[in-house]
Amino acid sequence: MSEKIVIIGAVAAGPKAACRARRLIPGAHITLIDQDDLISYGGCGIPYFVSGDVTDEKELRSTSFLMLRDQYFFKEAKGVDVKTLTRAVSIDRDKQLVHLEHVKTGERDSIGYDKLVLATGSRPNVLPIPGADLDGVFTISSLHKAISIKERLTKGEVGKAVVIGGGAIGIEMAEALKDLWGIETTIIEFMPQVLPKIVDKTIAMMVEQHLRENGVNVYTNEGAQRFEGDENGHIRKVITNNRELEADLVIMSTGVRPRSELAREAGLEVSPMGAIVVNQRMQTSDPNIYAAGDCVETLNLVTGKKAYAPLGSLANRQGRVVADNLAGIPSTFEGVTGSFIMKVFDVCVGATGISMDVARLEGFEALDAMAVQSDRAHFFPTQALMFMQMVVNASDRRVLGVQGFAKMGDGLLARINAATGMIARRASISDFSNLELAYAPPFSTAVDVLNTAANIADNRVSGRLRTITVDEFLEWMDGKKEHGDWVALDVRHPREAEPFLEKFPDRWISVVYDKVRSQYETLPRDKTIIIICNAGTRSYEIQRFLDEVGLNNNMVLPGGLNVIRRLGVAWWPK
Amino acid sequence: MSEKIVIIGAVAAGPKAACRARRLIPGAHITLIDQDDLISYGGCGIPYFVSGDVTDEKELRSTSFLMLRDQYFFKEAKGVDVKTLTRAVSIDRDKQLVHLEHVKTGERDSIGYDKLVLATGSRPNVLPIPGADLDGVFTISSLHKAISIKERLTKGEVGKAVVIGGGAIGIEMAEALKDLWGIETTIIEFMPQVLPKIVDKTIAMMVEQHLRENGVNVYTNEGAQRFEGDENGHIRKVITNNRELEADLVIMSTGVRPRSELAREAGLEVSPMGAIVVNQRMQTSDPNIYAAGDCVETLNLVTGKKAYAPLGSLANRQGRVVADNLAGIPSTFEGVTGSFIMKVFDVCVGATGISMDVARLEGFEALDAMAVQSDRAHFFPTQALMFMQMVVNASDRRVLGVQGFAKMGDGLLARINAATGMIARRASISDFSNLELAYAPPFSTAVDVLNTAANIADNRVSGRLRTITVDEFLEWMDGKKEHGDWVALDVRHPREAEPFLEKFPDRWISVVYDKVRSQYETLPRDKTIIIICNAGTRSYEIQRFLDEVGLNNNMVLPGGLNVIRRLGVAWWPK
Repeated sequence: MSEKIVIIGAVAAGPKAACRARRLIPGAHITLIDQDDLISYGGCGIPYFVSGDVTDEKELRSTSFLMLRDQYFFKEAKGVDVKTLTRAVSIDRDKQLVHLEHVKTGERDSIGYDKLVLATGSRPNVLPIPGADLDGVFTISSLHKAISIKERLTKGEVGKAVVIGGGAIGIEMAEALKDLWGIETTIIEFMPQVLPKIVDKTIAMMVEQHLRENGVNVYTNEGAQRFEGDENGHIRKVITNNRELEADLVIMSTGVRPRSELAREAGLEVSPMGAIVVNQRMQTSDPNIYAAGDCVETLNLVTGKKAYAPLGSLANRQGRVVADNLAGIPSTFEGVTGSFIMKVFDVCVGATGISMDVARLEGFEALDAMAVQSDRAHFFPTQALMFMQMVVNASDRRVLGVQGFAKMGDGLLARINAATGMIARRASISDFSNLELAYAPPFSTAVDVLNTAANIADNRVSGRLRTITVDEFLEWMDGKKEHGDWVALDVRHPREAEPFLEKFPDRWISVVYDKVRSQYETLPRDKTIIIICNAGTRSYEIQRFLDEVGLNNNMVLPGGLNVIRRLGVAWWPK
Repeated sequence: MSEKIVIIGAVAAGPKAACRARRLIPGAHITLIDQDDLISYGGCGIPYFVSGDVTDEKELRSTSFLMLRDQYFFKEAKGVDVKTLTRAVSIDRDKQLVHLEHVKTGERDSIGYDKLVLATGSRPNVLPIPGADLDGVFTISSLHKAISIKERLTKGEVGKAVVIGGGAIGIEMAEALKDLWGIETTIIEFMPQVLPKIVDKTIAMMVEQHLRENGVNVYTNEGAQRFEGDENGHIRKVITNNRELEADLVIMSTGVRPRSELAREAGLEVSPMGAIVVNQRMQTSDPNIYAAGDCVETLNLVTGKKAYAPLGSLANRQGRVVADNLAGIPSTFEGVTGSFIMKVFDVCVGATGISMDVARLEGFEALDAMAVQSDRAHFFPTQALMFMQMVVNASDRRVLGVQGFAKMGDGLLARINAATGMIARRASISDFSNLELAYAPPFSTAVDVLNTAANIADNRVSGRLRTITVDEFLEWMDGKKEHGDWVALDVRHPREAEPFLEKFPDRWISVVYDKVRSQYETLPRDKTIIIICNAGTRSYEIQRFLDEVGLNNNMVLPGGLNVIRRLGVAWWPK
């Protein structure tokens, strides 16, 4: 065989497909084409390059054994030809030719293929507002941009920065700017919370509060309306619907969209939002053309609907599937659950499956369960609290998603990773209750926080656990919601309850957990009792008891005050 | 309903069943019975209490909100009666009565039940050798024993300790003795490796070497034959088949067996090895009697065979299933995959599913794949190597198990937890290749080490990757196996290869990775080439290339020299 394989795009999916195809297909002639001169880099590492955790951009382009992945490397080590600074202009599917143009010289050429792979990636969304083209307004679309940003930081040209968009990349960039460079940094998010649709409000509020504690301003429900520059065309100000913010640097991280013109113009099927349509073997509507990475459409395994999931990790998996199919091995890529994790200063946040917001939009009968528990044995010295919210479909008890917030480390990853394959396989609440997570005191608890989340979900779906929402509770405490007939029953140790009793004498009462059975007759019968502890566990037990003795006008505060404490509420007693 | 529920055993499964049943069944009267006075403790925390990480044994018996779980707690907070120091002597199934005896007073009594739960736990195996009853020879069978051991340590009575049994508890105890107390500690293991049947030889050797590096002597293939005491009946020496070891303290951690006499004498079905037989609803052969925890038999979900899995984490899950069924909720416990993790000084080791040794014994067509890769992005400052071995069944590509070795932290847990639910659901190699583990550079790599292990397994099963075993390689290097027709081809950087070339000029050659394509004609054609790099990845690529050019008498050293380096081989160049 001397098959000619041409691959357009040489960042993640492209090089993966090229190298594996080279190993699988003896004699194949493989050419990687990219319009950039920097190829095969870890784009997800850009925020860590900007922060300085990664010193040199070459580290993002090197193998783990420290060889630079440039075109010479691909030729000599991998046996793959690379044409950099070369744009694919059009595809002639009849003649199986790609027309090329050199980016610098304009020189034109063409290359024939037996099989073609499109790994053309994505491009960042740019807000269509005045001043978006000012100097100092960046998107994170390539390593070159990152290098430019870092140059400005190194030269001390940046004192104040505004990040537009509170998604993962926006937050990572904000941390990079604030943490190492000490730049006054503000995140603006158009939606009512950061990480919209990825996590729900409560966990998003924990992230926002942690950002604020680390000196990053966060404004939600706020959109940039225009950018103003100085006489040299350099960014000076960001104007939002609420305020003016000075800025020497603006980073727009408002999502990406597939780069699919080449495919569309060649008549390949493309989705309404612009992603190349592929089957599970990553084949486009032309059987000789495959596509993978940020330019393709995929399937959401939870909703069963088409989705767009531009992530380097998926690009690599898809690139491998392409190579297999080029070699006649019928591998498939079936879709995504949306696994996600990120570091935010000293904490991390992660999710897999879908959030409550998405579940409701998709028409599920969605319920959530919040578990708050030590990440390892509570008697183990390094233990810390982990917050884990499970989203389930009440009608069939299927688990739709989990999301969590924890101290920085790999503990949250351990729970997200445990859930992803289960959710893809439509596991139920009881599958998660019994899931055999590895246990030893330095790592986890006998009943892991992920099991506990499932147990709480079971209690909720079965109607045994009735909860107030965190939003309702906050509105009540803020006085926004008038509920004179509600009272908080604090079942924690009296020392813990005391500051709340003092501050809120009209709405807060204290009966310690192990005294409720003997003292429940003193509780008010004319009010709705909101049962409160630190994690929600004791509250649930008390709810079961109060129900049994006929005091069933009560609700549990899910996750307890451990949740509320992390939201940065103004009324928290000093 | 005023159902009478009696539960025998109040450590893990018993209290879990009691408390949940109390929450589920209004009006139920629940009694927990235990022959000990200390109940509801985290037995898995004993090594950390002995080490001093946990200061007070009460921490092992306290809730996360710091209430002591004694009988008063169960009564007042949980609404559950407890009888401590009370032995269940026999069960009268016709009259639904349990006959009781007070351990101290000998007073006899009986208690009637509507439903009975046996959570009688396990007892440690005691070696049937002379001196096993000497003072200072301990098993880790209860909190009382742990307290006694710690008293001796605190008083400075222990200078030298011998741990019999290189399983998890033995290793944890050895670390506890050596790390904090500085005691000269030796582990003796009868089998050829520590953690037999849990992990395979290569990973066990890494654990042994790490123990040695931390000052713990490890002797495998060695059994204790007798213990010798001094004139006061105190242990002085352990005599094995190979040596005499001085000892002031001996810990026998040679496994446990179910405590099931009560069940057997009552005529309940008990397995040949003595575990109580239960159905998936944890019901014994008497429908009014349930059993859970260390005393029951379970099912291994990988082999499909009956198994015994005495672990606190499983006891808790089973206890919950018992409570559900007592309340008429048809929950089930379907079996185990054998998830395991433990800390060993600065590293951790974990597994789920079955090992190669077990897979071969069970008649699978077992193959293994070793991945050695950074646990997070290789450019991220805190990255460290993770070793991950996957065991698969070649005939149907099913994944039977994974096991790993890593720097201490939760990173390995994240991979073991990801695998357990997949293995229980009979996932295939390609399911693991595509498994959507959460990715961001501070946590993982775009293609996670667990995905890589699956990719390597795919290459092995497909016959594309041919490997030498680590054992064969070590024998060859040790000169135990005469293979004058083998040569090591080191494809690493010449600086890395140099010390090996100098030390082994007759068997070691160097051609760096990216020069093999241009220099392969210099390679010997009359020898079997063992391709060597640091992780096995470059070696595989070179194998594919050499095969293509007709030099196919070659084998890859799986996991490369990163594996060998951790085995403590004597021949490693200084």
